[in-house]
Amino acid sequence: MFAVTILGNNSAIPTLDRRPTAQVVTVNDTSILIDCGEGTQMQMLKYNIRRSKIKYIFISHLHGDHYFGLIGLLNSLSLMGRTAPLFLFAPPELEQIINIQLQVAATILNYELHFIPLVEGEEGVILQDKDLEVSYFAVQHRIPCYGISIGLQKKKRKLLPDQAKAYEIPAAYYGALQDGEDYVKKDGTVVKNDWVTLPPAKGKRYVYCADTIYDESLVRHLYEADMMYHETTYLHALAQRAADRFHSTSVQAATLAKNAKVGKLLIGHFSSKYTDLQPFLDETWPVFENTALATEGTTFII
Amino acid sequence: MFAVTILGNNSAIPTLDRRPTAQVVTVNDTSILIDCGEGTQMQMLKYNIRRSKIKYIFISHLHGDHYFGLIGLLNSLSLMGRTAPLFLFAPPELEQIINIQLQVAATILNYELHFIPLVEGEEGVILQDKDLEVSYFAVQHRIPCYGISIGLQKKKRKLLPDQAKAYEIPAAYYGALQDGEDYVKKDGTVVKNDWVTLPPAKGKRYVYCADTIYDESLVRHLYEADMMYHETTYLHALAQRAADRFHSTSVQAATLAKNAKVGKLLIGHFSSKYTDLQPFLDETWPVFENTALATEGTTFII
Repeated sequence: MFAVTILGNNSAIPTLDRRPTAQVVTVNDTSILIDCGEGTQMQMLKYNIRRSKIKYIFISHLHGDHYFGLIGLLNSLSLMGRTAPLFLFAPPELEQIINIQLQVAATILNYELHFIPLVEGEEGVILQDKDLEVSYFAVQHRIPCYGISIGLQKKKRKLLPDQAKAYEIPAAYYGALQDGEDYVKKDGTVVKNDWVTLPPAKGKRYVYCADTIYDESLVRHLYEADMMYHETTYLHALAQRAADRFHSTSVQAATLAKNAKVGKLLIGHFSSKYTDLQPFLDETWPVFENTALATEGTTFII
Repeated sequence: MFAVTILGNNSAIPTLDRRPTAQVVTVNDTSILIDCGEGTQMQMLKYNIRRSKIKYIFISHLHGDHYFGLIGLLNSLSLMGRTAPLFLFAPPELEQIINIQLQVAATILNYELHFIPLVEGEEGVILQDKDLEVSYFAVQHRIPCYGISIGLQKKKRKLLPDQAKAYEIPAAYYGALQDGEDYVKKDGTVVKNDWVTLPPAKGKRYVYCADTIYDESLVRHLYEADMMYHETTYLHALAQRAADRFHSTSVQAATLAKNAKVGKLLIGHFSSKYTDLQPFLDETWPVFENTALATEGTTFII
């Protein structure tokens, strides 16, 4: 299971039927929450996201529509009796914002909250867990802002059965071969692992670009990702406004998806001024056909 | 128009159909928001509360279910172009919590936000505006917490037409009499205002008791109020748990309402453990009959 469920897709001002940004990426039995706009915990209830499964939270930047729902979620998890540690990756200032709000309420969380600051000017791997590898990178917005790349690493090497048979390796040893071990015959001869296996198949990857101005250099983080999310706050007629506010348009997101040769593009963070979202698809499809609206409550298999 | 609209009635953990505490008191063309749990701005949209009409906000205490929705609302009001000043009455620590969140987002609000701290150990009138008078008082909770009393002051004195006629006062002068002025006859004789009018009729009053342990001494703030809101986090079987957590039960709220001789009692702040709320009414009605559940979306005329 490697999927993303959309909980909110609107930009700053919530509307009646569109909430601010939040997504949950599910990797087998672990969930990663990406951004947490106001009302995210209620959206989780509505769309049957098990809050207890959230192990990692990533906050892209400190505009309110991306984190105002976090303190409420952290609080509820504690009241619900969570004891498992929670890992929060976010711009450093968020730690104080959380701590002061816990302090004035005389609240001590029931679980350990590990805060991992995203450091300005740096990028790279911030998390490895089982077959999961997460890295972050800066995007260009009005305040420090980060994208995130979530990769599913396949650890098992690919067995070449004909080769293994040719070296007379017993089938019971195939698992060890897939784990990368050599085989030693009874006569002491060594069969090197890479004679009978290939490197693990490339794992799937989801990249979330947060709020950003159109930036061609993001291609290096997006290249051949299976799925990417990119904001499209505006339709392309408002490209100048988008640039002024460090946001992007439909056509720009599609252009990046095309240049980066990704599998699928999800678009969101729509300005509240738009009630009909079909024009976003009308504009992206001619540039990059495999585009979908990041619709609340929809789960996309990566 | 003097009414209260309920936007949330649940205690700390939101449920699918019950949001944390928030109420809007409407006094003619002015609205006062009392508490602002997470999602309040969305509830305002849902129940057609005009956000631009909110002039005063009162936050009873700094447990998250009473204020986590505030920063989002303040932010949205600014994005929506508000320029009218907004007055916020709250425990002093909230000012820093707001300021730091505006600061990290490099946000400058489009309107003046006047912060008026509620001072521990004090009580009394905090606001007078037209025919409105608001006072606050401490309640007993785990952290500093305040109730609020909103009174509609009638300014016009009550005219006694027979007396006015007996003193031969022209009808054109009746308005001035209601405003408290004396009348001087052509011969210089003074007709004292209180010979021909009575003091203004008592104005209506709504009292909100916030989160509190059962406290008989609150009667002095509630006495003969037209409507009061009191929390009933638990049914009476859990009176000990209520006391331990500085909360109240159904029977306790009803007892206060009876002793204070109020007109009507609204109850809310129900624990998430209760899905059926009818038992709250079953327990309050024998003690104080004119009790209603503070149901989301319902407007109660005071």
